[in-house]
Amino acid sequence: MSSASTPDFAFPVAARYAGMASSPLKDIFSLAARPDVVSFAGGIPDPSLFALGDIAECYDWVLRERGTRALQYGVSEGEAELREQAARRLSRELPTDASQIRVTSGSQEGLFVAAEALIEPGDVVLVESPTYLAAVQAFAVHGARMVGVETDDGGVLPDALDAAIRAHHPRLVYLIPTFQNPTGRSMSAQRRAQVADVLRRHDVPLIEDDPYGELSFDGERFAPIASEPGMSSRTLLMKSMSKLMSPGVRIGWIRAEGPILDTLAVAKAAISMQSSVVDQLTVARYLETKDLDAHVATVIEVYRERRDAMAQALTGRLPEGAHLTRPQGGMFLWAALGEGWDAQDLLADAVSAGVAYLPGWSFFAEDADRSTMRLSFVTHSPEVIADGVGRLGEVIARRG
Amino acid sequence: MSSASTPDFAFPVAARYAGMASSPLKDIFSLAARPDVVSFAGGIPDPSLFALGDIAECYDWVLRERGTRALQYGVSEGEAELREQAARRLSRELPTDASQIRVTSGSQEGLFVAAEALIEPGDVVLVESPTYLAAVQAFAVHGARMVGVETDDGGVLPDALDAAIRAHHPRLVYLIPTFQNPTGRSMSAQRRAQVADVLRRHDVPLIEDDPYGELSFDGERFAPIASEPGMSSRTLLMKSMSKLMSPGVRIGWIRAEGPILDTLAVAKAAISMQSSVVDQLTVARYLETKDLDAHVATVIEVYRERRDAMAQALTGRLPEGAHLTRPQGGMFLWAALGEGWDAQDLLADAVSAGVAYLPGWSFFAEDADRSTMRLSFVTHSPEVIADGVGRLGEVIARRG
Repeated sequence: MSSASTPDFAFPVAARYAGMASSPLKDIFSLAARPDVVSFAGGIPDPSLFALGDIAECYDWVLRERGTRALQYGVSEGEAELREQAARRLSRELPTDASQIRVTSGSQEGLFVAAEALIEPGDVVLVESPTYLAAVQAFAVHGARMVGVETDDGGVLPDALDAAIRAHHPRLVYLIPTFQNPTGRSMSAQRRAQVADVLRRHDVPLIEDDPYGELSFDGERFAPIASEPGMSSRTLLMKSMSKLMSPGVRIGWIRAEGPILDTLAVAKAAISMQSSVVDQLTVARYLETKDLDAHVATVIEVYRERRDAMAQALTGRLPEGAHLTRPQGGMFLWAALGEGWDAQDLLADAVSAGVAYLPGWSFFAEDADRSTMRLSFVTHSPEVIADGVGRLGEVIARRG
Repeated sequence: MSSASTPDFAFPVAARYAGMASSPLKDIFSLAARPDVVSFAGGIPDPSLFALGDIAECYDWVLRERGTRALQYGVSEGEAELREQAARRLSRELPTDASQIRVTSGSQEGLFVAAEALIEPGDVVLVESPTYLAAVQAFAVHGARMVGVETDDGGVLPDALDAAIRAHHPRLVYLIPTFQNPTGRSMSAQRRAQVADVLRRHDVPLIEDDPYGELSFDGERFAPIASEPGMSSRTLLMKSMSKLMSPGVRIGWIRAEGPILDTLAVAKAAISMQSSVVDQLTVARYLETKDLDAHVATVIEVYRERRDAMAQALTGRLPEGAHLTRPQGGMFLWAALGEGWDAQDLLADAVSAGVAYLPGWSFFAEDADRSTMRLSFVTHSPEVIADGVGRLGEVIARRG
């Protein structure tokens, strides 16, 4: 994407971005964007499911009824209406006041704001192994060292977390307890209580990232770890409208308690002053006047069917000894092909055969299982999924 | 703004934000927001001048004609249409290709992205004395030490810049050459050439911040320093739609050349993934189909009249020996009351008398002239300006 001309001057690049001029994932996404490739690589909502009419109506209302305010400077904390709506929605899981909400331009900015506010160079951040790549980046550019904590199909292992805290004295722990990216796994209520107990005991703060929790396929809702006794004051709970309403609108929020709220607002101001007031007021209007739950219910129907289609298509197509997660919600399946397989090596053949996925190595802070792959089931119809998985199965069979 | 409850847990705050829980400016803005106070404190465009109808039409078009794309994930570099329009507009001053544009969520994010990409802890950043406060903050949280360079009414002094570069070996120089915030001053073509010569000679990169350049009251347009020979590859040129179209929409861009463009995109992705696609496509549509120059021309008419009203009202109302800038554009007048005056001390009396301004000390990296104040002339009508300045004059007279 850089200019064709070779400049006569080389800008000094900060060490935090040295060698990061091109990300390997970007190259994968470019490959996956080829029109002849069925891509399971991205976590891209199906645009045909967007509530476009409702959202357009809300933009129209905001510009007609709140126009001059929407176009004017706002406040770093976020617009009052949106914070009210966010608090109302969150209060179904955890009593929340609007004053405890900080609006961010999507969850990515939320993670970055939190990292700005909390992390010193050299700090250790404990993460699930594997965990969400872009969160790792937001922490890493602040000089944090990520240490992965062992997980099973029920999420992070409390004993492993306890041992890692003792060994590494982390600044914070970052978890995605529900329909995790990349694995699709969720932590049970019991596991959450155990994890909360460990965190409380060691007085270690938690960043709880929950962009997928409402995409539950079987009606089961998991209360956030922040709602465990004593945990609400120790947790920055991150929410996003990207997976529920629209990723293009870039609106999310952080729930927190106490003085850290002020630091979050100062950090947000330093980073971007405030989020788009037009977008904030539109999302507030949407949450106030439209039925997000009903919309999410229609999305879930479709995603459930696609998860089933992908799980079924994969049956018998993975190598013997492979492990596949069985997510009850969210957007991702996670496959470990097992000993001797390298999903990154396999990708060139897969793309040649017309199918793409995200190699799993990039989701590990350390000791990557290179046999893993993340497969998003939300973007394509069951037919396209079956076709793509079929192609993947052939590539695996040829290599097997 | 923090929660009323006292939490049982104190989050660790990173040193970069230690002691920054509440900014003194925030308190001033709260005071200034009192309905009985005529505030010249903020740099707030007059909302009655927004091209609300045109902007609403563009949002409507984007949601009708590009709806699913506007609501979907975009790319960190920015949407192609917006980069095209930005390049077309910039090319009037400096030949620019769309590939040389990186979209940001307003200039503040532009400054933060640039700081992320370039600054190492301990680096020196040379700035005008005085300079824009929020830029200083974006650099400071990256561990930079700001060193102010002497200025006169023609901007930064080339010899002083040369000496400061020799003395401090700065990572970069940050300048606002046109209608500067906070002083309203502009650098002449000759001064720009001299400054460019110094920067080229020492091979020091420049961040050129230009949010006000198009708000020229007498038709004179200043070419950016980036357009001086050899400077385009050494400069990150920052533009913003906040002062021309709307601050609430939060769209700006950086122009750069060469490999740093890739680093800027990676940093932007780490910070916020991408800017609101809805807002980006709307601004692109606005620039493509509406006449921003004609809109700016109507805004300039009003601002010029207000600058004149404020300059006239201040005549004879400042203490003997005071110095007042005579900006040819932009949003701010800058007054130095002179020896023995402290504008921060004076503020309480001013607010009691129903008028507010921004004390100038906060705009200095070091050796603040505490007798200075920034007065924005854009928010109020000439009548309200005359009234507010009259009140300020009485406060000064009482103290004099």
